Formats: sequence, C-alpha cells, structure tokens
Amino acid sequence: MREVAIIGIGQTTVDEHWDKSLRELAGEAVLAALADANREHVEGLFIGNMLSGMISHQENLGSLVADWIGMPGIEAYKVEAACGSGAAALRVALMAVSSGEMDSAIALGVEKMTDTKGTETTAALATAADADYEAAMGLSFVAINALIMQRYLYEYGWKHTDFAQFSINAHANAVHNPYARLQEAITEKDYRKARMVADPINLLDASAIGDGAAAVLIVPVQRLNSNGMGRPMITIAGSASATDTLAVHDRSDPLWLSAAASSAQRAYTQAGVEPKDIDLFELHDAFSIMSALSLEACGFAERGQGPRLAQEGEITITGRIPITTRGGLKARGHPVGATGVYQIVEVVQQLRGEAGATQVDGAKIGMAQNIGGSGAAIVTHILKAI
Amino acid sequence: MREVAIIGIGQTTVDEHWDKSLRELAGEAVLAALADANREHVEGLFIGNMLSGMISHQENLGSLVADWIGMPGIEAYKVEAACGSGAAALRVALMAVSSGEMDSAIALGVEKMTDTKGTETTAALATAADADYEAAMGLSFVAINALIMQRYLYEYGWKHTDFAQFSINAHANAVHNPYARLQEAITEKDYRKARMVADPINLLDASAIGDGAAAVLIVPVQRLNSNGMGRPMITIAGSASATDTLAVHDRSDPLWLSAAASSAQRAYTQAGVEPKDIDLFELHDAFSIMSALSLEACGFAERGQGPRLAQEGEITITGRIPITTRGGLKARGHPVGATGVYQIVEVVQQLRGEAGATQVDGAKIGMAQNIGGSGAAIVTHILKAI
Repeated sequence: MREVAIIGIGQTTVDEHWDKSLRELAGEAVLAALADANREHVEGLFIGNMLSGMISHQENLGSLVADWIGMPGIEAYKVEAACGSGAAALRVALMAVSSGEMDSAIALGVEKMTDTKGTETTAALATAADADYEAAMGLSFVAINALIMQRYLYEYGWKHTDFAQFSINAHANAVHNPYARLQEAITEKDYRKARMVADPINLLDASAIGDGAAAVLIVPVQRLNSNGMGRPMITIAGSASATDTLAVHDRSDPLWLSAAASSAQRAYTQAGVEPKDIDLFELHDAFSIMSALSLEACGFAERGQGPRLAQEGEITITGRIPITTRGGLKARGHPVGATGVYQIVEVVQQLRGEAGATQVDGAKIGMAQNIGGSGAAIVTHILKAI
Repeated sequence: MREVAIIGIGQTTVDEHWDKSLRELAGEAVLAALADANREHVEGLFIGNMLSGMISHQENLGSLVADWIGMPGIEAYKVEAACGSGAAALRVALMAVSSGEMDSAIALGVEKMTDTKGTETTAALATAADADYEAAMGLSFVAINALIMQRYLYEYGWKHTDFAQFSINAHANAVHNPYARLQEAITEKDYRKARMVADPINLLDASAIGDGAAAVLIVPVQRLNSNGMGRPMITIAGSASATDTLAVHDRSDPLWLSAAASSAQRAYTQAGVEPKDIDLFELHDAFSIMSALSLEACGFAERGQGPRLAQEGEITITGRIPITTRGGLKARGHPVGATGVYQIVEVVQQLRGEAGATQVDGAKIGMAQNIGGSGAAIVTHILKAI
C-alpha cells in the first residue's frame, strides 16, 4: 500500500442553500480543493451522500458531479453509509490511490437537506436506522438517540444539564468558523431552556441539519516532490472502518460504540499512537450523548465518564482533548453525507495551523470519526502533519 | 497492486420476491457465494444498490447486510452508480483487496423493485438521468432510450424489426438459466406484436425489472494455494471505469458510448487482449438499442452496424461474439443495482464451464459491461480462466 497525503481541501458554508443545486454545491467544494492544491485535474471522484435520491430525485451522482466540474470521463461513484458516507467515501478514495489504481482522487461529501418539508427530511433520515424493526415501529432517528441518552442517564446517574458543555463548546468554536451554520455562542441557560425534541434530547443537544459540501484531494506521498507551498505535509496515518448491528436493540450493550472502539484501535495501531498522543478529535456529535459515547469508546474517558471531560473543560481548544474545534456537527452543521469530509477538512486546517481563533496550539496529530446510523457504521481517520 | 481472483459466486432468482426483504435477498446471495468458495467469513462487503432508500426506505445497507449475515464488525458500504452500481461495487471491492487493505471482499448487488406501484418505480429509475434537465422535462428513462433509438434508426437506416434478434437470443438463452426472470423463448412475431412502451421501444426491446441479488467473493491470487476444487482459477484481468456527461443532450454524439469505448480499451490493454480474443460478452442490454451501441463502442462492430451482428447470428453462443448468454438484462432480468454482479457471476459460470445448455465452447476469456444511466457511468471487466 502506498502512503497517501491530503494536499487540497475545500468546503462550502453549511446553510439553507435554496439558490444552489446539488451539483453546484458539489462543484464549489471540489474546485476549491483543487485550487487549494494548485491542481486542475483529478483521476477519480468518490462522493459521500445519503439523501440525494429521496430528496433531490437524483442518483448517479458520480456522473453528475464529474460532468459538472468539467471532467466527464473520470471514474466516479457515490458511496453511502448513512451519516458516515463522507468518511466512507474517503476510505474508498484512499483504497483507489493506495492500490495504485490512480494517482489522485477526491473524496467529496455533499448533501442537500433543506429543500423539503421537515417531516420529509425526518423520514429520509430514518432510513439510516433499521427500516423494518426500528423505523416501522415509529422510531425516528432522534427518538432512537433519545432512548440511548435516557438509558445513559439512568445507568450512570448523570443529569441532562451535565451535557451542556458539549453544546456550549461546539457553539463557542463555531463563532470563529466562517463556514459554520450557527456562528453564535450559547449559554448554559440557553441550553437548559431549549425546546424539547425527544426527551431528554432538546434542540441544543441536537446537531443542525443543512446543505453543504466539502472535499479533500489525496495523492500518493511518493509522487510529491516536496511538502509544497511551505505548508506541512498532511498524511493519512490511520484509517479504519467497522460496522455494528444496525438496530440498537440487537446490541448486548446499547451504551458501547463497539465499531468506534474497534476502528479507533486499528487506526491507533496503524498510526503508532495512543489516545494521549491525539492533539484534537473531530468526533460525531450528532447528539450530545454521542460525544460522550465516542470519547469513551476511543479511550479518552472511562465508561460512563464522558460528560466529566466536558464539565472539567478538557474538550476546549486548550483542554486535554479538544473536540468539535470548528463547531462540530452541533454548530458547524450536519449535512449528513458531507459531514465526514468536513471533519477531515477541519483536522487538516488544524494541522496546517490555519484554524485561526480556534487553533489548537502545536497540533501535529488529529483524529476524525464519522458515524452512520446509531453507531452502525463507523470510520476513524488519524492525520499527521510532517 | 495485487492480482485478484474470483473464488465464489452466488445469486438468487430474479423475480417478484414479495416474500423476501432486501436483507433476505442479499443474505441469500452472499451466503451462496461463501458456500461456493467453501469459506465462512469475509473481511469487507461492498454493495451495489440504487433504489433502497426510495423504495424500501432503507439506507445504511452495509450495516444492514453485514449484520444479517452474522458479520457485524466488517467494513461495509453501499456503492451507487445507478444501473451500473453492481460493477461499481466490484471496482471498490477490487481496490480494497488489491491495495492490501483486506485479504477478502464480497461485491454484492441487490435490488428490490416490485414492492411499489409501477409509476413509483419509473420515477425512482428516472433518478439515473439528469433530474434538473431530463427528468424534470418529463423524460422517463425509457423515453430517453427511445429518443436514442429513434435517432439511430434515422442515422443508419435500420428498421425496428432489425433489432429483433437481440431479444430473441436473450430469451432463448434464459430458457436454460434457472435464475432468470423470463425463462421463455420468443419469436420474431412476438417481437413485432409486442405492446409499444415509448416509440420505437416496445415491451420486447425493454429489459424486465425484478428483485434479486448476486454476489462474488474475491481474494488475492497470491493467497491461494491452488486453483481449488478442481475448477479453473478465474482472475480479474481487466477492470476499468469511465463516466460521460449525465444528460444525453450534452454529448456531441448521442449514438456513441464514449465511456464504454474508453473503459473497454483500458480493460483490453490491462488484460493484453483484443476484441477478437473475447469468448463471450455480457453486455448491458437494458434496451435492445444499447446492445448495438455497446457492441460498436467496444470494437465488435463498425459504427452503425451493431444490428448486423445480431441478424447474422454472430451473437448466439456459437457465434463470433456470444452475448447475453444467460438471458441478459432482457430475460434474466434487470434488478438494477444488482445487474452488474449478475453479469460477473454469469461470466464466471461460462469460464468454469458451468453454463449448461448455453455453455460457450472452450470459453477462456469473458467480458462484462455494466452501464449506469444512458451511458453516463460505465464499468468494464475482463475475466480469464487460468
């Protein structure tokens, strides 16, 4: 396998882009990634997307985007793993380049979610869960996460407000990210008073959906003459993916993200690092409960102790394990199939030292973890600045 | 890159499987492929599927199927390129194994199309075309192909009935394929009298949709101790993919499948063969016009002369270039995202000498070509028996 570097990043703002179609959003991110790398062409395009068929009545996204960016002819597919589609697309791009099939590839994530009524979006998102045994019983995606959070509070004795710092931290960081959907700080009082969605998950526990696209350009390290442009070279030092049961009720322990644990463990081994070596962690905070479970599964907190890290300030950019440094799903926004690529773009920003007011000092090793379904498909990446 | 062999194949019948869910169909094909190879486990699963979100309200198919076959934990994604999804999934599986990421992978194609009303299926299939500039103008997928066929008849002076042998050959072969949807022969009179769908495409020009799943298990050749089980070893000697403009009206020549030509040319080069060396060709006969265009683009017929091959009997199992030897999309059936894997399964049957009454004598080199959209995403594979 050939070692691979990320040499270009691009993203659109996450927003209600009613004036931009799927292809326009995608093109904006891809062309930005190419420009960032000072390149004009790429050999392959792998697109993380979940909802285009249901919401935009458009499949065949590979051809749609390859055509739109002026490169009909290149190999291009859509890759889907629900909300984990973005990182899954990066996995496929990585295999395409590391195998020698091609010498450059773009992993693109794109999602358009706000052109429909909210109820339709909720129904479309429920396809991430088990259609026959969860969704058919009336469980929406937020309801499944509410059951998990309810169980967590019961098992470990935390109160709902103990999760406030996850959301407060995400919003505080998003203030400084011009691409974020919600560039506004929130207080603990805001958190406590937020409208209930599915008890105990309220509006400020839940990530904001949105339209958006993000892209990264990867090439084999051996083809690079130098680090280029005076920036540190960013390599993919660890990359691993795992599945779990689709339905949460099929797990022996609904509070343990086994696919997060196993994919993180493999990524650590590949990168030759341990949790204490990770300078920042873009985790999948679709709901605040998921932040706690991810920190625990990846070895940053003991079982049941995720919220303590947040309460003690260890998740801020100066803490022990900074998370959601550009706003996370909560405040940067969660255009589902694109999110995994936004996370990678943000880790690259940190490792290049381009994160502005939310720069993690001296960041050299960053991790990103993208989750499809309620922990059913999880992809973990570790990037290094060299 | 590591050379890869196909060591297991599995398929379900193509039918209206109202008693089987998406996961049950998928599981049946995967477990059959594992049993065929005498294996019990696989490291990765890549699933070609187009319509599951729209028709079965189920995405996250990787986790769905990995879980159902008793292997939660393995890496698994859905890969989508409209009706070319099956072969696209094989491309990704191939890159996963050839890169060294894993030592075994299954490419699965699965589609469930008959649980909805026909109009809904037609609308879902239209997502393979350009939603904004084709489908939004009222063009269904068959209508787009009808325009192409109309133009072909006009340009080259053929009559509609000159295409009859494509359908007659496919049905004649399907009679001997127990997995085929339409195991019944048709006559030229049947063809001429078939009901019109979209002029000039009638019911016997069009492939039959259906529910079905097919799977192939691939491993690196270097990990095989012997050819195994006394069967010839089947290697993937050529594998290439290309895109074209999504909308047909954006092509300088709507009668030339440029992505078929370029992917076939690259596959020929990789395999070190020419069209004359190909013993059989499972092409993408979604409509009879596509058979002619594919034969021309891949070098088996001159421009505008595809129908002549059919009329002269050169496409039958004893002809110069046998096509649709197990029934093709026309009569084996076209469960869209699964079709590309059915084609591979059928080429393997031929190269192993397991094709029964439609065995191509002494077949050693077989080709399969899978098309997504109206020529927008095309994947070509060449397999060799060693």
